Amino acid sequence: KTIAVLPGDGIGPEVTSGAVRVLETLSQKYGHNFSFVKGNIGGSGYEAEGHPLPESTLSICKKSDAILLGAVGGPKYDTLPAHLRPEKGLLAIRKELELFANLRPVTAFDALLDASPLKRERVTDVDFIIVRELTGGLYFGEPSERRGDVAVDTLVYSEQEIERIVDKAFQLAKTRKQKVTSVDKANVLESSKLWREIVEKVAQKYPEVTLEHVLVDAAAMKLITEPASFDVIVTENMFGDILSDEASVLTGSLGMLPSASLREDKLGLYEPAHGSAPDIAGQNKANPLATIMSAALLLRNSFDLHEEASVIERAVTDTLNSGYHTADLSVNGSNAKRVGTQEMVDQVIKHMA
Amino acid sequence: KTIAVLPGDGIGPEVTSGAVRVLETLSQKYGHNFSFVKGNIGGSGYEAEGHPLPESTLSICKKSDAILLGAVGGPKYDTLPAHLRPEKGLLAIRKELELFANLRPVTAFDALLDASPLKRERVTDVDFIIVRELTGGLYFGEPSERRGDVAVDTLVYSEQEIERIVDKAFQLAKTRKQKVTSVDKANVLESSKLWREIVEKVAQKYPEVTLEHVLVDAAAMKLITEPASFDVIVTENMFGDILSDEASVLTGSLGMLPSASLREDKLGLYEPAHGSAPDIAGQNKANPLATIMSAALLLRNSFDLHEEASVIERAVTDTLNSGYHTADLSVNGSNAKRVGTQEMVDQVIKHMA
Ligand SMILES: CC(C)[C@H](C(=O)O)[C@@H](O)C(=O)O
Ligand SMILES: CC(C)[C@H](C(=O)O)[C@@H](O)C(=O)O
Repeated sequence: KTIAVLPGDGIGPEVTSGAVRVLETLSQKYGHNFSFVKGNIGGSGYEAEGHPLPESTLSICKKSDAILLGAVGGPKYDTLPAHLRPEKGLLAIRKELELFANLRPVTAFDALLDASPLKRERVTDVDFIIVRELTGGLYFGEPSERRGDVAVDTLVYSEQEIERIVDKAFQLAKTRKQKVTSVDKANVLESSKLWREIVEKVAQKYPEVTLEHVLVDAAAMKLITEPASFDVIVTENMFGDILSDEASVLTGSLGMLPSASLREDKLGLYEPAHGSAPDIAGQNKANPLATIMSAALLLRNSFDLHEEASVIERAVTDTLNSGYHTADLSVNGSNAKRVGTQEMVDQVIKHMA
Repeated sequence: KTIAVLPGDGIGPEVTSGAVRVLETLSQKYGHNFSFVKGNIGGSGYEAEGHPLPESTLSICKKSDAILLGAVGGPKYDTLPAHLRPEKGLLAIRKELELFANLRPVTAFDALLDASPLKRERVTDVDFIIVRELTGGLYFGEPSERRGDVAVDTLVYSEQEIERIVDKAFQLAKTRKQKVTSVDKANVLESSKLWREIVEKVAQKYPEVTLEHVLVDAAAMKLITEPASFDVIVTENMFGDILSDEASVLTGSLGMLPSASLREDKLGLYEPAHGSAPDIAGQNKANPLATIMSAALLLRNSFDLHEEASVIERAVTDTLNSGYHTADLSVNGSNAKRVGTQEMVDQVIKHMA
């Protein structure tokens, strides 16, 4: 199995190399054979090869079975023309590889609850996943242009685009708490009316799954007031962008949250939910756990290695419960031990044994 | 001065009649002459006159100096065809009267902080206002239609539409903490790029005001992690819909939050930020304070009666601090006194003396 590794910018290289160490240890232990191939992306793609998504990177990814990405972006790229900015690399790889399903699990870690901005009792049992459509809607709709003193973007969805992402959400719900929350703005948008119709249609195939429709404004409230009430949330690209970032800060564990962007087949791109944190790059301060958790998602979703994925996830929880934490996590108590990026990776590897 | 009163549905009639009582008391005290004219809107507009925004209501509003609205909507209207639903009345009145600037202040009340989903220390000093563009963007852009198996909506803004709302935000910031946070998605949307350009241009007229640009996904996070860092937030229609609802639950005071929707001149529509709560309608349980606070905004924005507005706002705070609260507010301690809608209005009137 080949894994493309795209470290990207900022803390990207540190956290991906940590996750690769974890994957290597695991493959030895279980007798798998993973080979890792590196590619440039984002600002470092531009610096090395003149483009945020170089052709060479795209071709590496197309030949791989899964992709592990660090993060892209940084202030030094702010002056580049829009089409060469780091985030264009991200948008391009999603579209080129048809990674239409973005999965963002949000899970509360007991050891981190005090760091949550929310009252402890609100977030204790939080365990949901946002399924965001990633290759349609306002992000890619045409026209998207300036017309004299007017600017236009287009929110467009086809039945088939909606159906495949909604189906993904129901599939997931079947393996979890059997509940789907579909988020739209059907009281205003035509695209949301179509969205809701298709959701109703797909739901008939899954009679065991409970379905609720929530308007996007109400969903933004409910994420804060009743986060533990959700299981699988499915929504279109722009709403998903906003709600998944909102959701990522609820439990105080932003540095812990992975993400997966999947194609119809087994190919997927895995990356931490956090950004490239250029302010602490190269200082052995970054938290590698979200990337390590992303590697676990990779094993589960692209390689069907469920046991191996669980080994990583349990090791991360155990490491946290033993008091190990990087500077971004607030862990208190007598067993609290603050460590750097590399030591954190060492501890996870130790706890995998 | 004429005030159009549109009670609407659910608890709308109870809370507007409470606010009218407050306005009447105040007008006697200060020797003003307010006359109130009633109109139908929403579900009750449909029931009484066959449309969620009857012609008669629109004509009453056009002849008035300000509009006080309760709330619209309820499950019994769910089966109506889309163009007759209660919320269409709301969208139509905004567009017909060109109420382009929606102001949603979010303020923490000391007496209510324990009801906040957030940890107390995060919300103590929260005092910001969201300025949402209300008559453009995805809500009204054309085309908005079904094309075979595809559905399309259009996000469109002109320079002039952006300029007038952004100018409003800077004007407001000048009278407050001198800070504007402009929210967009300029790394993806053409309309956001134009938005950002215009914001930069308008900002030059206000050198004393600090400006920051925040992407909408980051803004959804920052509202939760650092709500006290904001002063005036300005954004387009759909982002404003999502962020203002998100913001409304932060301080535990949803039942307290007013809103104003303003035209270029002094005309404005004032309504509570909460909904029509059909489950408790007609039971003397509803919290009238958000509507009473909306009446204060009406006095300040449409009538330039600043002292009178402050009298109402202080009376509301004093009433809360004396322990009076409706069932939706969680107030504890030895002086906590739970009251119904009418008694709450009585208390506010008493505290105005
Ligand atoms: C960088 C940006 C274009 C991207 C998005 O909006 O999709 C990011 O916010 C994300 O959520 O992955
Ligand atoms: C009822 C609905 C159309 C409306 C909107 O989306 O503007 C409401 O959510 C609001 O914020 O006033």
